[in-house]
Amino acid sequence: MFELHPKLKEDTFIIGSFPLSLLLLNNDSNYPWFILVPQRENIKEIFELSEDDQTQLLKESSYLSELLQKNYRSNKINIAALGNVVPQLHIHHIVRYKIDAAWPDPVWGKVLQKPYSNELKSIVTEKLKGILKNNFTFKI
Amino acid sequence: MFELHPKLKEDTFIIGSFPLSLLLLNNDSNYPWFILVPQRENIKEIFELSEDDQTQLLKESSYLSELLQKNYRSNKINIAALGNVVPQLHIHHIVRYKIDAAWPDPVWGKVLQKPYSNELKSIVTEKLKGILKNNFTFKI
Repeated sequence: MFELHPKLKEDTFIIGSFPLSLLLLNNDSNYPWFILVPQRENIKEIFELSEDDQTQLLKESSYLSELLQKNYRSNKINIAALGNVVPQLHIHHIVRYKIDAAWPDPVWGKVLQKPYSNELKSIVTEKLKGILKNNFTFKI
Repeated sequence: MFELHPKLKEDTFIIGSFPLSLLLLNNDSNYPWFILVPQRENIKEIFELSEDDQTQLLKESSYLSELLQKNYRSNKINIAALGNVVPQLHIHHIVRYKIDAAWPDPVWGKVLQKPYSNELKSIVTEKLKGILKNNFTFKI
């Protein structure tokens, strides 16, 4: 049975789920930083998913990316599947601005993680839920 | 008409092309680091590609990732679409080892780029061409 990796549990907040993937908010308020985790067991690489699941992941990733770019008016969406530390397949979707803390570099290793206050966390997660409320495949 | 971005031309070597994407070797011998560039004009984000192109990109990316993992016996394949500096959509595929220069961190901003010698560049590109020689959709 699928279970979210303890490190992802610790470092993120669950916003909801698409048919395949959990949607998480990464606990780093430097950037609007979301993570998709396909709810499948023992998967480390995208190519290990079934073809149908890969296609569904692509759909969810592109849908989320476009939604983020529109609603956050970002300069760029950074998408990455790394997984050197947390082996469970998870795909970062990071909203980037030309004025953010790391621009134009990738976010990793640039500035210290800045955990959310409870208030700001609620604002960001509620915003996402609002953006997604007309998507009937998304469950809170 | 599609043309490879000047910065990608400068920083990489062309190995060949899949039906959609050019396959490049990044000129950093710290890691076996390959890049896919969909041969489409004015595309910055994966979601801007047509649905068919997105599916084809996914196929090429997963095919390449699996091939790299098998042939390089990697510990992890890091996949990323960043594009903060070079806006033309390009997807990194980096072969990672537990003993490499940046492990377990992402490769960006860790160690200085180490350009290939001509000899090593030939060895790596010929190896890839050999691996791909039975794939009739891949053109050198």
